[in-house]
Amino acid sequence: MGGMLVVQKFGGSSVADPERIKRVAKRVVETKRAGNSVVVVVSAMGDTTDELIGLARQLSDTPSEREMDMLLSTGEQVSIALLAMAIENLGEAAVSLTGAQAGVSTNEVYAKAKITGINSERLDKELAAGKIVVVAGFQGRCANDDTTTLGRGGSDTTAVALAAAIKADVCEIFTDVDGVYTTDPRVVPRAQKLPSISYDEMLELASLGALVLHPRAVEFAKIYNVKLHVRSSFNHNTGTIVEEVASMEKEMVVSGVAYDLNVAKIAFFDVPDKPGIAMKLFSALAAENINVDMIIQSTMRNDVNDISFTIAKDELNKALQISDRIKQEIGTPDYDYDDSVAKISIVGAGMITNPGVAACMFEALANAGINIQMISTSEIKVSCIIDADSVKKAVKVLHTKFDLDVEEENSAAS
Amino acid sequence: MGGMLVVQKFGGSSVADPERIKRVAKRVVETKRAGNSVVVVVSAMGDTTDELIGLARQLSDTPSEREMDMLLSTGEQVSIALLAMAIENLGEAAVSLTGAQAGVSTNEVYAKAKITGINSERLDKELAAGKIVVVAGFQGRCANDDTTTLGRGGSDTTAVALAAAIKADVCEIFTDVDGVYTTDPRVVPRAQKLPSISYDEMLELASLGALVLHPRAVEFAKIYNVKLHVRSSFNHNTGTIVEEVASMEKEMVVSGVAYDLNVAKIAFFDVPDKPGIAMKLFSALAAENINVDMIIQSTMRNDVNDISFTIAKDELNKALQISDRIKQEIGTPDYDYDDSVAKISIVGAGMITNPGVAACMFEALANAGINIQMISTSEIKVSCIIDADSVKKAVKVLHTKFDLDVEEENSAAS
Repeated sequence: MGGMLVVQKFGGSSVADPERIKRVAKRVVETKRAGNSVVVVVSAMGDTTDELIGLARQLSDTPSEREMDMLLSTGEQVSIALLAMAIENLGEAAVSLTGAQAGVSTNEVYAKAKITGINSERLDKELAAGKIVVVAGFQGRCANDDTTTLGRGGSDTTAVALAAAIKADVCEIFTDVDGVYTTDPRVVPRAQKLPSISYDEMLELASLGALVLHPRAVEFAKIYNVKLHVRSSFNHNTGTIVEEVASMEKEMVVSGVAYDLNVAKIAFFDVPDKPGIAMKLFSALAAENINVDMIIQSTMRNDVNDISFTIAKDELNKALQISDRIKQEIGTPDYDYDDSVAKISIVGAGMITNPGVAACMFEALANAGINIQMISTSEIKVSCIIDADSVKKAVKVLHTKFDLDVEEENSAAS
Repeated sequence: MGGMLVVQKFGGSSVADPERIKRVAKRVVETKRAGNSVVVVVSAMGDTTDELIGLARQLSDTPSEREMDMLLSTGEQVSIALLAMAIENLGEAAVSLTGAQAGVSTNEVYAKAKITGINSERLDKELAAGKIVVVAGFQGRCANDDTTTLGRGGSDTTAVALAAAIKADVCEIFTDVDGVYTTDPRVVPRAQKLPSISYDEMLELASLGALVLHPRAVEFAKIYNVKLHVRSSFNHNTGTIVEEVASMEKEMVVSGVAYDLNVAKIAFFDVPDKPGIAMKLFSALAAENINVDMIIQSTMRNDVNDISFTIAKDELNKALQISDRIKQEIGTPDYDYDDSVAKISIVGAGMITNPGVAACMFEALANAGINIQMISTSEIKVSCIIDADSVKKAVKVLHTKFDLDVEEENSAAS
């Protein structure tokens, strides 16, 4: 490889201490010396973010999100400066840029900002000067010149957005595993590394808890057609390529089994069957930036419904506060929650042309004695909410059911 | 006091930990609640800068100054975010601004940038909205959008520059002593706190090692006529006011005795007496941003000179490297250095109209058996380079000689 424009993204654990930063610098310099132009996106060093949050807690129980962004964005700023120094120490010219300097514009939603545009002028200039450009992930600047952070998956998203803006040939996402697997190799030792996968499949897998790549980043990559390469920072093996696959017949109907334990369920009972009630609830949740995943509304008796929905478990407390408020406002009898649930999903572009895949999944789960609480389907995935205790069993059962097991157990992934 | 526009500056030791930040927040909120508009300028927390430098050293022996500025500027960014949170926690609206956000423009001399202008638009807007504005000292943004740090005295300078830009009524410099003293109270317990002092006197005292206020900041204050109030962060006593005194007859001929141990002397021997030699040497030092203080050139024999000059002791190594280079270039026989010297100075606006003050100083030193190595004078000060071991004796002798001793020893300063 050579003569390419490459964006490389390294997470917080890859730059956790000076030794690891040196290792990243070496890898980046190798890529540069192979004849490529390189932009590197890094996160904050290991525990930095937690330490900064700890400091903030000592000063305020409810620090404003604006000031938290001001505080937390220093984490990546330290990483980029140190990585640039390490690269320069290896004899290559480098320049570090904050999100703002790299032209990352966002909306004004502090702590969860969305990228609204990239002005790559500075980036282009530094690359043209032959420099390795080191950009702070996870952050940007909003219209009023404030620093914002992008929230979860922010560094992945930064990398993909920059790759799109500068029309990079590939965006390499470095991680501690070898690529994207048919399922979590810690649960199923016979999981396979996928050589390539489509954006949609990756999107579903990422949304469903395959933590190797954040769904926001995949979505961005899909829209701007950025070729992703998910690979290990510990070796030079080819990982998994994520790109728009020319629509050949898919070999595998199901290409992966994903699970997510960060799930909680809330159920409202006996909600009056009047227009606007559900809207009120979900608008209130949206106003607090709580993502609702599955929603089920079932008419049980005359004039009243049960409404169940799932959210990320770590937003349960916030969601319960809102639920309390809504309960008083609409005078609904009661609600309940369950935080010992999990989501299990099968994903595959081949499902579109293969009817009966969902039924096959339900049958496998039923045969294993696993009860399904909620179901949600899309063109290329089927998800079920089940009891959290059954999730590993479910993954194994489905991985076998859909012929994903390889012959020999592998230990390529940690 | 009330209805004023006040800039308050707190140094790194005042914000060294969350408890101290809370104390600063309390003081700032008091000032606000007395009816004033408040801008606060803070430095990085206590040891943060040293810790960041330690990290950088692990990655490069010679980190670039640009990347050091990127790294070190995170220190103040953490302070401002935490202080803003602490203020909000006390119920007042606050907003933190980096140097760049506060409109601090600098030249492109990394690590030692000079402020070239202030755009106070954002500051004015936030003040008009009733907010306490917390600004990162020591930093700015240069024309190419890079972050720069201002070097020594940078936070004092930021505070004064902002005060000038927003036309503040007063710029309060909080410190660990009660104000400006006639000399170092640790050396002379009978030193007096000066109720007021002119910019020129303060400038000389500051230049001469009275560390309470950096000369750059005083210079700025003088040019823009910013009233300074040097006061203690531990009590509410009035400190020392620095302002342009209406030119009445000065009560005291000498208003202070200052000393500086951060001094080293370099002497070139037998330099060919040709034009441009001295220029070559001092240009080379200036190119490396080394400030030369006193210079003495003396013709000793035919066609050759001795040239001696003083610099800050902590720049001696850099200066010696340059001296080596120059020695080879101009083929001068040899040079030597002495890092066990000190500078002792007397300062007073009244000196202009009182001839013989210098002679009086030399006499007092001679009587005390202290040898003078170099002399430099201005309209309001006389400085001598003497042996470092004699400096405390010299301070005491001069403080008494010029009638600065108070009746009783004081312990107001630490």
